[in-house]
Amino acid sequence: MYKPPLADYQNLLTQYAGDHKEYDLATMQQFLQAVGKFSQERLWPTNKIGDQEGIIYNPSEHSVSVPKDFHECYKIICDNGYTSTALDPKYGGGGGPWVLHHIISEMLASGNLSLSTCPMLTNGAVTTLIANASDSLKEQYIEPMVSGKFSGSMCLTEPQCGTDLGLIKTLAEPKDDHYLITGQKIWITFGEHDLSDNIVHLVLAKTPNAPDATKGISLFLVPKYLPDGNRNLVFCGGVEHKMGQHASPTAVLNLDKAQGWLVGEERHGMKCMFEMMNPARIGVGVQGLAVSEAAYQLAFDFASQRRQSRSLDPKQQDQGHTADIILVHPDIKRMLLIIESTNYAMRHLIAYCGYHQDQNNLDIVDLLTPIIKSYVTEQSLDNVSLAMQLMGGMGYVQDGLCEQLYRDGRITMIYEGTNGIQALDLIGRKIAKDQGKSLMRLLKHLKPPKDIEALINQANTTLLQNTQNPSIIAAIAPSYLKLLAISIQYCLITQDNHAADSLKTFYTDYILPETKLYLDQIQKGSSSLLDHQKYL
Amino acid sequence: MYKPPLADYQNLLTQYAGDHKEYDLATMQQFLQAVGKFSQERLWPTNKIGDQEGIIYNPSEHSVSVPKDFHECYKIICDNGYTSTALDPKYGGGGGPWVLHHIISEMLASGNLSLSTCPMLTNGAVTTLIANASDSLKEQYIEPMVSGKFSGSMCLTEPQCGTDLGLIKTLAEPKDDHYLITGQKIWITFGEHDLSDNIVHLVLAKTPNAPDATKGISLFLVPKYLPDGNRNLVFCGGVEHKMGQHASPTAVLNLDKAQGWLVGEERHGMKCMFEMMNPARIGVGVQGLAVSEAAYQLAFDFASQRRQSRSLDPKQQDQGHTADIILVHPDIKRMLLIIESTNYAMRHLIAYCGYHQDQNNLDIVDLLTPIIKSYVTEQSLDNVSLAMQLMGGMGYVQDGLCEQLYRDGRITMIYEGTNGIQALDLIGRKIAKDQGKSLMRLLKHLKPPKDIEALINQANTTLLQNTQNPSIIAAIAPSYLKLLAISIQYCLITQDNHAADSLKTFYTDYILPETKLYLDQIQKGSSSLLDHQKYL
Repeated sequence: MYKPPLADYQNLLTQYAGDHKEYDLATMQQFLQAVGKFSQERLWPTNKIGDQEGIIYNPSEHSVSVPKDFHECYKIICDNGYTSTALDPKYGGGGGPWVLHHIISEMLASGNLSLSTCPMLTNGAVTTLIANASDSLKEQYIEPMVSGKFSGSMCLTEPQCGTDLGLIKTLAEPKDDHYLITGQKIWITFGEHDLSDNIVHLVLAKTPNAPDATKGISLFLVPKYLPDGNRNLVFCGGVEHKMGQHASPTAVLNLDKAQGWLVGEERHGMKCMFEMMNPARIGVGVQGLAVSEAAYQLAFDFASQRRQSRSLDPKQQDQGHTADIILVHPDIKRMLLIIESTNYAMRHLIAYCGYHQDQNNLDIVDLLTPIIKSYVTEQSLDNVSLAMQLMGGMGYVQDGLCEQLYRDGRITMIYEGTNGIQALDLIGRKIAKDQGKSLMRLLKHLKPPKDIEALINQANTTLLQNTQNPSIIAAIAPSYLKLLAISIQYCLITQDNHAADSLKTFYTDYILPETKLYLDQIQKGSSSLLDHQKYL
Repeated sequence: MYKPPLADYQNLLTQYAGDHKEYDLATMQQFLQAVGKFSQERLWPTNKIGDQEGIIYNPSEHSVSVPKDFHECYKIICDNGYTSTALDPKYGGGGGPWVLHHIISEMLASGNLSLSTCPMLTNGAVTTLIANASDSLKEQYIEPMVSGKFSGSMCLTEPQCGTDLGLIKTLAEPKDDHYLITGQKIWITFGEHDLSDNIVHLVLAKTPNAPDATKGISLFLVPKYLPDGNRNLVFCGGVEHKMGQHASPTAVLNLDKAQGWLVGEERHGMKCMFEMMNPARIGVGVQGLAVSEAAYQLAFDFASQRRQSRSLDPKQQDQGHTADIILVHPDIKRMLLIIESTNYAMRHLIAYCGYHQDQNNLDIVDLLTPIIKSYVTEQSLDNVSLAMQLMGGMGYVQDGLCEQLYRDGRITMIYEGTNGIQALDLIGRKIAKDQGKSLMRLLKHLKPPKDIEALINQANTTLLQNTQNPSIIAAIAPSYLKLLAISIQYCLITQDNHAADSLKTFYTDYILPETKLYLDQIQKGSSSLLDHQKYL
């Protein structure tokens, strides 16, 4: 069964939030316990129900209904403000630290990933509206979004474009104070559902005669229901049949002169969208960690109960049984330790990012965002797979619960910008663009030991040697991201007094050496990659 | 769409089979083309049907039916002897080389993994019956099994034991010329189905007063239908609901004084079972590679068609379109090259094992078996995940076909002995037991370059230093297996004139450095692993 790791959470809160103007530490800890209890006792049992029942799409009404239990849970989340702890109190948010927000989000997503995705997206939408929307839009939409009465969606992708948004065709024609928007959007998470009274779609579109590529894109607020209560002309045309997250609708949305209101300036859509996307990307990293944590709990429980073979260490043999719990076997320990130590490190990384969000060190947050989205989701899914492996046949059948975590979690490596895109974002927009200044500020704050500093410098040297060759830089990017992720996490956990020494030693001896592999790939692996005949 | 890589296959046949007493090279190549066409055109379309329809269990009849299309395909496989090419001609087999068999098996499993599992198990059962059964049993059962009229199953696991078969409770009481067998077996792949006229279960059980642990185990042949045509008392009590392989039944079998005949000597059951398990373990490695190959084909097709963003290299920009095919992007090349180069290397490893099977170099085959089962399935599933990643959202939805390959293939890392067990088998039964002599013979044959030899020696030194501490040896085992796998594959592909130079260079620069990580883990990672407080 899933049990939230409250001791780790409390350590991170103490370390990275401390007493806060809106919440003192004791209040935050009470809050954590309440959310933990809710996630364990209410959300977790709904997770399998969601997988088996899934959503129901009604084509004649263009509507989607989610499982009944989800409505009750969503109401509890909203009534208790579980997902708005860090939002502006002016709109009903808690005004608390981001560290607290990330920890709560992790627990909710461990309990039920599909359901937790809905408020995660709403949060991102609120962030960009607060930063960019007109006062009138703010007044109408933000408070009900913060309370969960309305939810938010992000409408970027079209059939011909996902990664490359410059190819967007959706058209926004000005009319009176608003625009009429026509086009098709696909892969829209929670783009249609019956959890909230209204859905606030944030839609990328081009105004007539806008320039090509991304500089012609604007952002529009397109509500499912108009302020007068009438249905807007944005309808769900179908839902995807996915590997997992069966209870989280992924909608096709058809807009046929739907009414939309401009958010921010015309042709500044990408900038505004990134203000939604960046917190959502951190949120996706949190989702990855959340499934990895739930998988760890399942695997640890299994390893503590299943008896199979004798311990190789005579002292560990339990004479009351004909076999020992499998937790005594070295390979089982190995698998659990990989999961436990990397979960610990990733959680630390996310809390550390939350700290910089709270301190308004936005360049460091921007740098950490693609690392969290990409590294955390990838390592987390590896961890879920390891947990499945540890559980043997039980890991592969539905009764074991772990296989659902894999299927549900796998999308985190893909949505909100694939992990490959994150690596390009890191190396292009976050490192090269300011000549590594943000990275230097981060390292100054982290105080890495000499060997880690040397490692990062070696990686950077290869980058600098290839500034004239963007293909090589792009080929290097994924290994560079992982090298940086592990180095940062290594600094964080070795400086953490709360972490067990054996956990630190394991991380140092078993995980940290991965960085050498990535350095090899950075230094040598790119040219053969680009030269392969078959792909020229 | 799946297209078999016939050029690679032909290269391996030429290299490792040559002209053979039963088949000359030209005949084998014709055979390959026929199987390839069948797999691509007939099997592949049934794969999704199998996933969606699944098997149907009828509790009142204790019966399982597989999708209708599977019956037709199974008949073609049997009528053409596709799965019996390497079996003894005395019983209707083709008597051909194992290299040919592995290549055909790969194609069949790429086309439809669930269906291909049935003849794979039958093959394993035939192997142990030929080696161990009485003449009377051979006469009754082997020919119809070789032809596919009867299928085989392997009944090892019980609720309280999978890995640790010493805990088996199923009882075999002698009666006349046979035994009456009572107990419950679980996780029995194709333990019940309607593809063949009869199912020959090979069942591990203990005779009365047999000693504890595995030395008390005997092997029995328990047919679903008795020689007189009556139903034997072995009934399917249910089927598992799995992550994938929905069309491959995983049965609970209840035996209630079912009639069984001893195979081999009493209390020699484990030895006989391993004669079934070893070819099946190689077969599972082939299954892993098969899904990785199918995934590669899907990803390559996707990358060659999907247009998104401009190439960073102006020479590669296609002016006829507003975006380039994603195959031009370095990160896409990187993902494809990891899959392509490791698939190539793994296929080579399996063919090389087939060569030693044909040469009757059984110690080398025994050594390679756990490496193939474990390394190939793990790398293959990583590859399927990479293919899914490359395909973005399409990788995650059912229409993209790739997610099914992941779900279906994931069990290969678990069944026929989990990958952790393979590592212990390698290091304990295959290396330590003969003081590394088989490994030395293998290396002599492989002729590794000096640096690879030094690497393997370093790993062996750590093993030798810890012979008195089995826990450390066990902790080291998984990294040791991977180090050896990559080293062997590196030797094989760098010496292969057929492989593209850029593929070899990529493997050398990007994949081979993994061995250094594994060496680090071998040398440093085991003590902290064993010392972690939480798991003591």
